[in-house]
Amino acid sequence: MQQVFQTQFNTLSSLKTNMFNKDFLLTWDRSEDELKAVLTVAQLLKDMHKAGKSIRTFDTGLAISIFRDNSTRTRFSYASAANALGLGLSELDEEKSQIAHGETVRETANMISFLAEVIGIRDDMFLGEGHTYMREFGSAIQEGFENGILHQRPTVVNLQCDIDHPTQALADLMQLKNTFGSLENLRGKKIAMTWAYSPSYGKPLSVPQGVIGLMSRFGMDVSLSYPEGYGLIPDVIEQAKKQSAQSGGKFEIVNSMDAAFSNAEIVYPKSWAPFNVMQRRTVLLNSNDKPGLKDLEKECLANNAKFKNWECDEKKMKLTKKGEALYMHCLPADISGVSCAEGEVAKDVFEKYRLATYAEAGYKPFVIAALMFLTRMENPTEKMKQLLENNSGRR
Amino acid sequence: MQQVFQTQFNTLSSLKTNMFNKDFLLTWDRSEDELKAVLTVAQLLKDMHKAGKSIRTFDTGLAISIFRDNSTRTRFSYASAANALGLGLSELDEEKSQIAHGETVRETANMISFLAEVIGIRDDMFLGEGHTYMREFGSAIQEGFENGILHQRPTVVNLQCDIDHPTQALADLMQLKNTFGSLENLRGKKIAMTWAYSPSYGKPLSVPQGVIGLMSRFGMDVSLSYPEGYGLIPDVIEQAKKQSAQSGGKFEIVNSMDAAFSNAEIVYPKSWAPFNVMQRRTVLLNSNDKPGLKDLEKECLANNAKFKNWECDEKKMKLTKKGEALYMHCLPADISGVSCAEGEVAKDVFEKYRLATYAEAGYKPFVIAALMFLTRMENPTEKMKQLLENNSGRR
Amino acid sequence: MQQVFQTQFNTLSSLKTNMFNKDFLLTWDRSEDELKAVLTVAQLLKDMHKAGKSIRTFDTGLAISIFRDNSTRTRFSYASAANALGLGLSELDEEKSQIAHGETVRETANMISFLAEVIGIRDDMFLGEGHTYMREFGSAIQEGFENGILHQRPTVVNLQCDIDHPTQALADLMQLKNTFGSLENLRGKKIAMTWAYSPSYGKPLSVPQGVIGLMSRFGMDVSLSYPEGYGLIPDVIEQAKKQSAQSGGKFEIVNSMDAAFSNAEIVYPKSWAPFNVMQRRTVLLNSNDKPGLKDLEKECLANNAKFKNWECDEKKMKLTKKGEALYMHCLPADISGVSCAEGEVAKDVFEKYRLATYAEAGYKPFVIAALMFLTRMENPTEKMKQLLENNSGRR
Repeated sequence: MQQVFQTQFNTLSSLKTNMFNKDFLLTWDRSEDELKAVLTVAQLLKDMHKAGKSIRTFDTGLAISIFRDNSTRTRFSYASAANALGLGLSELDEEKSQIAHGETVRETANMISFLAEVIGIRDDMFLGEGHTYMREFGSAIQEGFENGILHQRPTVVNLQCDIDHPTQALADLMQLKNTFGSLENLRGKKIAMTWAYSPSYGKPLSVPQGVIGLMSRFGMDVSLSYPEGYGLIPDVIEQAKKQSAQSGGKFEIVNSMDAAFSNAEIVYPKSWAPFNVMQRRTVLLNSNDKPGLKDLEKECLANNAKFKNWECDEKKMKLTKKGEALYMHCLPADISGVSCAEGEVAKDVFEKYRLATYAEAGYKPFVIAALMFLTRMENPTEKMKQLLENNSGRR
Repeated sequence: MQQVFQTQFNTLSSLKTNMFNKDFLLTWDRSEDELKAVLTVAQLLKDMHKAGKSIRTFDTGLAISIFRDNSTRTRFSYASAANALGLGLSELDEEKSQIAHGETVRETANMISFLAEVIGIRDDMFLGEGHTYMREFGSAIQEGFENGILHQRPTVVNLQCDIDHPTQALADLMQLKNTFGSLENLRGKKIAMTWAYSPSYGKPLSVPQGVIGLMSRFGMDVSLSYPEGYGLIPDVIEQAKKQSAQSGGKFEIVNSMDAAFSNAEIVYPKSWAPFNVMQRRTVLLNSNDKPGLKDLEKECLANNAKFKNWECDEKKMKLTKKGEALYMHCLPADISGVSCAEGEVAKDVFEKYRLATYAEAGYKPFVIAALMFLTRMENPTEKMKQLLENNSGRR
Repeated sequence: MQQVFQTQFNTLSSLKTNMFNKDFLLTWDRSEDELKAVLTVAQLLKDMHKAGKSIRTFDTGLAISIFRDNSTRTRFSYASAANALGLGLSELDEEKSQIAHGETVRETANMISFLAEVIGIRDDMFLGEGHTYMREFGSAIQEGFENGILHQRPTVVNLQCDIDHPTQALADLMQLKNTFGSLENLRGKKIAMTWAYSPSYGKPLSVPQGVIGLMSRFGMDVSLSYPEGYGLIPDVIEQAKKQSAQSGGKFEIVNSMDAAFSNAEIVYPKSWAPFNVMQRRTVLLNSNDKPGLKDLEKECLANNAKFKNWECDEKKMKLTKKGEALYMHCLPADISGVSCAEGEVAKDVFEKYRLATYAEAGYKPFVIAALMFLTRMENPTEKMKQLLENNSGRR
């Protein structure tokens, strides 16, 4: 094995994981060792890819995706991960299917899974639904597996639900780890996860929830900030608080972008809809109440407009530690003067960190590949060893 | 070779087949040996998959699909089969193509087939069209092959046409073979292929036709049942009768679900549109006569409504042999109280057999893989031997 | 190495190319040696495929496609090439993406390219846009690569832009090379690239531009012909003239189909919209001026209708050398009495050459594969040697 990979491989060998045949839905369902294993495998796969090596671990097999909302980044990250590991991609396009007939999730889940290894699901629009759908899906294929319908138990990977966006948050964590040198170095560092103004409404809560739900595990000083009324799901806040206490970090909620930015080493300004608006919106969407939705949008946009000063600009960046905090975003950002008149971030701030945000996004394919690897390989350490030792390159 | 596979391999070796480079359109075009070879190869591939082995037989190559109607199960079965054998999937989406320009089938067939191994086609909506389209497609690529345009002759696999649904019927037959122990054990067993009430109309005839067209080959006692006026294509009925006589089975048509169920060991209650309605509907669809279609739908639904008692419920199930007949369905079923108010099958009956219907569906990917294998491999026995002897697993 | 491949391999070895990690956008950007290398690799890959060999050169990797216009042939050619070389296909469907948010090309280009090898783009509808988009895309991934965002520099392959359609023109050139025996034999041969009548308007200019831009490199006698007012992009005309002079060929523009056909050994009758109409159309499309577009269409169709006699019929074919010129078309053709009442070509002429046009189209998958091969392999000659020497077949 090349020395460059040996250290990471040793780290992986030292971690205790129990992820084989388990769904990956929320980061806070997994142990710290398991999260570290995800980061380590993702980094190993990324470094191998960069070195021109093949990271193929499957001869054949399907990676199925179900996107219930538009997506570019996550779609391509998933497609890239599947292909790199040797899986074929098959997308369930619900419009082209017979699911409208009133077919149950239970049935669909089994029907598409006979030869599947992984099912990636994105379902982030309706509060209370995405995560529930993934759980139902997981139960259905578990039943199918236990009854001999499915030869193997495929694993569900959450590609964004109403509660968490684990592949994004884990990619964000890799960006932090590599920027600051190690996970250990993140202890005590202040991260400002803050609402920002956007000329749209109804953006999902899962990105900020995913970030506070993950960063609070590693002793960081998490400052969550939003205008009054723009709260997140209370249970997730409680989870973050608890984890923060356990990991020796801090957790605060403030109602000022300036306060959050003050002395922060990382800032994550990102728009989202208030929790209670998402609740009302879900009711209206489910009853297909178009006038109601129109009214809600109008009300919310008017409310948003009161907070146009929640923009990440040069002046606010000066409040951060040495004025040099790392700016983060899951992309695409609403950039003032580029993609909208007034948005989440000023043009010059974004431009300064633009390539850094691309690098942040660049971890996602490998995080997804790591989740596939760890949930599909019975002995991931042994398999990784084989991959590192017998490798003739991609071309 | 592992002993567990040896018996089936010996069976395969003993069968005489001539399927290489031949389209697979109707089961009654193929010899009994060929059908047995399909079942045997499908079972071998399924058992190998279950044992974690790779069933890859292609290094590269395209499996093309043309779906002219919505589909989930068949789409995923085809995608799964293609991937498992090592083929890449490429779907012809007629909406995104230039075919609307008035391009001929002859041309399209060649244009998409330069590197294709298999073309799977589903075209089941218009009576008199699907099968004809597949034949035309086959002739076009035959011409292309004979004239050196195509390097090889891809094979067309019928994924459901107006006449037959061979991959479904063969999956159904595998379910029967495995439930009752052998094909030989099916002799004399009564199967009730019966119409059932559904709140929709215009369901294709190919499932019941496929079932009677295949089960009549194996000495079964086929009871076809439907309300007066809900007949199938007369030629298919004739074919089934003839085969029934040849195979030492029985064939009857009755107009009562109770009569069909009486002493049956297998029941297959499934809605379909009357043959003459499909004829009228095809004319209306081709002339794009929307008011005419609306009227026809109204008339048919009203007619269907007279037969709401054609539901497979507990009481009818009691009429079957020991009250324990095997319930079959191609899925999705119209389940009373689940996917509709009143439908083909009562909720409790369906629930009792739900997992059995999933298992039934689970044969389809391997039936399709077997058709790909047998129509693409010049010497399928030799190839199967290699697959069984040199196999290092899927991961 | 088999003798049959040795000659072509020797040719490839003798050519000087510099295509690794370079985009392939316009044929006139590449040297004569490079174009010859494309033809040689395409022919080798085609012959290997015909001989049942595998041409797989990648273990894993993505070939991404972006189709901003409908396509069948090019879509399947690209899918076929990608699969044959071992790449997975991933299509960017802009409707299902988040790109509508106002995301920049710069960002999208990087987001989808983390594990990509090749990006095939078709963008041919708006004059002044397709080629520009491809250049922007290329610059964006170059920046990403130079800044360590991308591990490798994927290459952009032009699958048709507003200026050139290089994969079509190169397939056309292969058809000519094989019909007349060698590139050298094309010297002095007259090719009539001529406008033809079609009942539609707004067909792209890139096919005729691609043909005159490529055939003028090989000493051919290029006769470009169109009704007054149906000119091509002036810069492309100038390029073709210059190349014609350099290669010892001829270049003329005439306003008569008969004049172009006279003594021609190759005819390529194909409809296109006048350059100035495409300019006006682009303005209207960009301002989404639907009444304006309707008016323009009406005006153009009325103008087109004056030139219905620009049809390639038996009588005009008699004007060609010995009445036996080779008829070419990129397909689908507007065939009088088949796909339209009056069109580009008479039914009997098309039928005579129909299989020849299929053969012409049959080069395209291999031309695309050759472009992938030459832009991705650092040492294509060495790689080709390996492919020829170690090959166990596709099945």
